[in-house]
Amino acid sequence: MVIPSYEDMLAAHERIRPHIRLTPIRTSDYLNELTGAQLFFKCENLQEPGAFKVRGATNAVFGLDETQAAKGVATHSSGNHASCLSYAAMLRGIPCNVVMPRTAPQAKKDTVRRYGGKITECEPSTSSREETFAKVQAATGGDFVHPYNDPRVIAGQGTCAKEFMEQADGLEFVVAPIGGGGMISGTCLTLSTLAPETKVIAAEPEQADDAYRSFKAGYIIADDAPKTIADGLLVPLKELTWHFVSNHVSEIYTASDQEIVDAMKLAWKHLRVVLEPSSAVPLATILKNRDVFAGKRVGVIITGGNVDLDKLPWN
Amino acid sequence: MVIPSYEDMLAAHERIRPHIRLTPIRTSDYLNELTGAQLFFKCENLQEPGAFKVRGATNAVFGLDETQAAKGVATHSSGNHASCLSYAAMLRGIPCNVVMPRTAPQAKKDTVRRYGGKITECEPSTSSREETFAKVQAATGGDFVHPYNDPRVIAGQGTCAKEFMEQADGLEFVVAPIGGGGMISGTCLTLSTLAPETKVIAAEPEQADDAYRSFKAGYIIADDAPKTIADGLLVPLKELTWHFVSNHVSEIYTASDQEIVDAMKLAWKHLRVVLEPSSAVPLATILKNRDVFAGKRVGVIITGGNVDLDKLPWN
Repeated sequence: MVIPSYEDMLAAHERIRPHIRLTPIRTSDYLNELTGAQLFFKCENLQEPGAFKVRGATNAVFGLDETQAAKGVATHSSGNHASCLSYAAMLRGIPCNVVMPRTAPQAKKDTVRRYGGKITECEPSTSSREETFAKVQAATGGDFVHPYNDPRVIAGQGTCAKEFMEQADGLEFVVAPIGGGGMISGTCLTLSTLAPETKVIAAEPEQADDAYRSFKAGYIIADDAPKTIADGLLVPLKELTWHFVSNHVSEIYTASDQEIVDAMKLAWKHLRVVLEPSSAVPLATILKNRDVFAGKRVGVIITGGNVDLDKLPWN
Repeated sequence: MVIPSYEDMLAAHERIRPHIRLTPIRTSDYLNELTGAQLFFKCENLQEPGAFKVRGATNAVFGLDETQAAKGVATHSSGNHASCLSYAAMLRGIPCNVVMPRTAPQAKKDTVRRYGGKITECEPSTSSREETFAKVQAATGGDFVHPYNDPRVIAGQGTCAKEFMEQADGLEFVVAPIGGGGMISGTCLTLSTLAPETKVIAAEPEQADDAYRSFKAGYIIADDAPKTIADGLLVPLKELTWHFVSNHVSEIYTASDQEIVDAMKLAWKHLRVVLEPSSAVPLATILKNRDVFAGKRVGVIITGGNVDLDKLPWN
């Protein structure tokens, strides 16, 4: 297991800076009143492909040597990682192979293809996915870029917290959603050196609270098939992300699906940015734990903005 | 008729700068491909009260002398001007009286009240509105701040184009929606001095195309009660805004309600910001007039982001 270092994160930032956006910070007087905190929202939903995952993906893609780059990259994902890796590969002009369940939403497949990713479909089961992915990788020689359990990916995600601390002074907390733990791990990586007094809080859906239970138990607990509106947060922790979560996260808070939808709507209304359900979990937990955050300067990472506008959860 | 000058706009910018946001510019590779143009979107929907009108409103409010300020301000509006004037008055700590038809949406009334505005209801007719407003003004002595036919308001709106030219180089066009013409007039005021080679284009709903017909006829044509999804653009030009429109606007393009809704959805999906139907009219007209804008650097002003999330026009 190779644990990425602070220097890896700094190198990642130099590498990816030309390919990503310096995303803006949003604030809302109304949400500050409502929570009693001073909230700063880092809008990773405003990256070109709509998610922070472009950071880790571009770090992996632009770090490949020429020989490997010619063979491209490969991954399995039905979410933002697939489109962000395709986008990064398109920027470098190299192949990207993605294994996706045939049941994945058409919109997700369309986005991957728009960025030039080549999709191989599998059945919606772990065994089919692994078998199909092994075949694709053997055929193409593409470098496997895991959605989160990869030191290059975590170093890339850590660049978000570095920018955040440069854009907003004196944050006492940074709150981000947790699924597999890529963004939280990158945040821990950066802040444990850059701002060790800033507490890292993970926010998780109640209906997929495996990270919360892992955190309390002291070892990784993985659920089989959790169901929540926050569809970016279904995957379990892996050894690399567990390292950061178990060593550097201060607390994990959870929120119900209804609380997540309510927070999402509040954010759309008062921040006026389009964020996906997974990205509303931090605000939902801040609203539930007012006593923890009131009077504090709190950074919130809005992780993504890819949502089906025809199926909004409040309609 | 007092026509505001470029110096008035510069003074307005100094006056309001502490009270407004320097709103960010958004771009989208996808929308650039789709239109063939290089589009830069100035996000006035990301002002705290969600609309550019906070510029003109703060300029009027913070320009009052102490004696007048003590009596406050007054206006009639059922839209963004009412909430932005209330917001500006709240910032200065002075009274704001708003005459609104009793049929105005509850959400609009709630926003005005949240910012401390005092609402007097009238019947939904011009005669009732004027009569009620005269009474309110006589009773309070509040300074009348017209939504757009006021030199202080136009000078304030003009600060948006100044920021825009500082944030995005070499714009060949600036496109903004037109209703009463406040934003377009401010844009003309600023660009006719700062960047006279930049063409100002107004975008209007087909179903409320009185400015288009005025522009072609050479005199103000006002419609009685136009109906369009772009509910911020229902009001007619007045003498001050007609001055700027007739002298400085290069062209007015129109779009149907369906085209406006389609453009709104595209913008939500690819810019990932929440904008109201009125703010989608420029993109709708750019998509319709591809030959005019292809290959050009085009600035688009997103004027507002106040929309009822429970009644989206595509659901």
